[in-house]
Amino acid sequence: MKGSPALLTDQYELTMIGAALRDGTAHRPCVFEAFARRLPHGRRYGVVAGTGRLLEMIMDFRFRADEVAWLQEQGIVDAEAAQWLTAYRFTGDIDGYAEGELFFPGSPILTVSGTFAECVVLETLILSVLNHDAAVAAAAARMVTAARGRPIIEMGSRRTHEEAAVAAARAAYLAGFASTSNLAAGLRHGVPTAGTAAHAFTLLHDDEPTAFASQLAASGTQTTMLVDTYDISQGIRNAIAAAGPGLRAIRIDSGDLSVLAAQSRALLDELGAPDVKIVVSGDLDEYAIAALAAEPVDAYGAGTAVVVGSGAPTAGLVYKLVEVAGRPVVKRSENKATVGGRKTAVRRHKPTGTATEEIVFVRSAPTPEPGDRTLSRPLIRAGALVDGLPTLEESREHLRAALVSIPWEGLKLSVGDPAIPVTVLTT
Amino acid sequence: MKGSPALLTDQYELTMIGAALRDGTAHRPCVFEAFARRLPHGRRYGVVAGTGRLLEMIMDFRFRADEVAWLQEQGIVDAEAAQWLTAYRFTGDIDGYAEGELFFPGSPILTVSGTFAECVVLETLILSVLNHDAAVAAAAARMVTAARGRPIIEMGSRRTHEEAAVAAARAAYLAGFASTSNLAAGLRHGVPTAGTAAHAFTLLHDDEPTAFASQLAASGTQTTMLVDTYDISQGIRNAIAAAGPGLRAIRIDSGDLSVLAAQSRALLDELGAPDVKIVVSGDLDEYAIAALAAEPVDAYGAGTAVVVGSGAPTAGLVYKLVEVAGRPVVKRSENKATVGGRKTAVRRHKPTGTATEEIVFVRSAPTPEPGDRTLSRPLIRAGALVDGLPTLEESREHLRAALVSIPWEGLKLSVGDPAIPVTVLTT
Repeated sequence: MKGSPALLTDQYELTMIGAALRDGTAHRPCVFEAFARRLPHGRRYGVVAGTGRLLEMIMDFRFRADEVAWLQEQGIVDAEAAQWLTAYRFTGDIDGYAEGELFFPGSPILTVSGTFAECVVLETLILSVLNHDAAVAAAAARMVTAARGRPIIEMGSRRTHEEAAVAAARAAYLAGFASTSNLAAGLRHGVPTAGTAAHAFTLLHDDEPTAFASQLAASGTQTTMLVDTYDISQGIRNAIAAAGPGLRAIRIDSGDLSVLAAQSRALLDELGAPDVKIVVSGDLDEYAIAALAAEPVDAYGAGTAVVVGSGAPTAGLVYKLVEVAGRPVVKRSENKATVGGRKTAVRRHKPTGTATEEIVFVRSAPTPEPGDRTLSRPLIRAGALVDGLPTLEESREHLRAALVSIPWEGLKLSVGDPAIPVTVLTT
Repeated sequence: MKGSPALLTDQYELTMIGAALRDGTAHRPCVFEAFARRLPHGRRYGVVAGTGRLLEMIMDFRFRADEVAWLQEQGIVDAEAAQWLTAYRFTGDIDGYAEGELFFPGSPILTVSGTFAECVVLETLILSVLNHDAAVAAAAARMVTAARGRPIIEMGSRRTHEEAAVAAARAAYLAGFASTSNLAAGLRHGVPTAGTAAHAFTLLHDDEPTAFASQLAASGTQTTMLVDTYDISQGIRNAIAAAGPGLRAIRIDSGDLSVLAAQSRALLDELGAPDVKIVVSGDLDEYAIAALAAEPVDAYGAGTAVVVGSGAPTAGLVYKLVEVAGRPVVKRSENKATVGGRKTAVRRHKPTGTATEEIVFVRSAPTPEPGDRTLSRPLIRAGALVDGLPTLEESREHLRAALVSIPWEGLKLSVGDPAIPVTVLTT
């Protein structure tokens, strides 16, 4: 039912290729860049996310015969363009920020070099993957900061497109979430999975003690019991009566979570179950998580807010042609502060390790100073993945370290400016 | 790379099935319902969307051998559950509102009947598909209302997950959009596709007249020329000089679209090109479209806002167990106005055809009055699709007619209450 990634493309890319093949410009060497003109309102950083799965899809980006036939039948491409599409594979170079790197307005996070035609055809796929995954990762990173070390389980699959859910689980894990409820994310991306029971399981049984006994018989005491189907206090009593004080955790999914967490902790302690952990869930975003910081909560479940980017469902990345045959180009009709020419970037740091600014070099090699970290790195060379690209675990660690390096104001949840400025050097 | 739809599932569905298989409750006959407790803030209606592609995926919902092996290896399911998953296919019944039907808080839009295990395993997939597609369709329907008959092209693929983009294009077309830029939506779902050229095409060429000449040579005059790469007035002059007054359209993608549309119309008329149409795009949502109603615009391109649901990126649908072995069940620990028991619904209308309310019958057959329209209809029977399910075109017409039937206040863009009330009859 699903096709190749090649049709996840806007039609105008192919009509442009058709015209450019006729007039010969299709083969001009070009450089395209993906960057954000601005961050979503009030956000202090963006997170590069999706690179790993994007690069895989670029390697798989082939037009199938039936797809090309359909395009020709529809009059979208002519015979010459159809032939070109059939033979297509990306043979150019891609450089970019590491997955898990932070970005700011103007950061050149992905640079694609090759012929016009081979680069422009990737536009939609590149932007779809990065805009989605970066939006989720940025929201997730803010939640991880708000959780102050307590683990967060991603459980938002049901609130977003079924395939977006898998990518969202991956992006949330990249950003420091502990696990996901999404099984495909476990199998495809190695994200740890979690999940025990829903209210339906309790309702299915004749009463709550029977449901809990059944869960225990199947999973043992290293399970989480959902205690708010009927009365929460009674639910906790039933859970401890069934499992004893060795139960791993209870989960509360509704009501005033601050009050309920404190009451539940007191009750568990009173029942002689001080080691039973408390998991809370139910429409948690970064602000709700921050508000629970002082409560006796051991783990959070986050759903809707993380998968829809907590108010910023897309990262606002664009993909622009910046160089044609060695000449910088730029759209000039409006006030968008875009600079033509291929760019590379370094991040400057104090001796203490705190980042101070990002320097973007236009059409010149970076001249790093002590404490500079080069951000742009090779990802694809002559159509092949470079060796040693980071794993998802390594990207996760990269982001953790990058977040530690920005000034502390950059981690505040409140509306503010980008954590560090980006300086563009055009000389 | 992609698996079957079966792993697009939350882990707890499988751990519940494992426990329920052990204790025998997995086979209890159950009824689950999908509904919204409320509409997104200020919205006056919801739109049922995604049903067509959901039903297809339910027919394909099979656990592959490698998926089951992985689940067992991870300790998520035991041998008995693994065997059950391997043999799984849905054999129950599904009823629901037609795709393209409106819904309101409490409307029972999908009812799934079968054993507990076979129904609960579909929970995540059902909610992912309906929550995403309904969110896009509702935003798109508001834009279509705001456009007052002018066509809208969906061009938001790059702002959302690459597969969500295909579903979004389908949902926008369902809601009355004229076409999409997304090629996969054309091939998979038959949505008309559109697209001609981006700014990159002009930048690729030595100058704008050369770019326009190339586009014309490839596409003829029935094309749309993007005129705002450099100076818009000069761009329009170049377009008409190249194509003559028979050009189909120009597109403006930046700047103050109201002012530019009027100026462009005047210039085109002055150049003797009164039939050349004006397409505008660039961050249009339903409010921006409404604000352009008085301007000489012929068509809109809408991107980001439609694919992210224009402020409401998920529809808030939930999937709840409402009946077990003929007994109504309901979670009781909180103040959610949920009623147990299987439901069916009719919509009541005045003799003029205007809808007045929706009546939900709980555990009883509807008793329709004159002017009532039965909303719940059979979709799957004993695991097989019923004959004659509507095509996407038919669903599109269904929604068009449904929108005409609600009171006119229901179509206002401003924040308000649901267009009609839902009355639940529990007797």
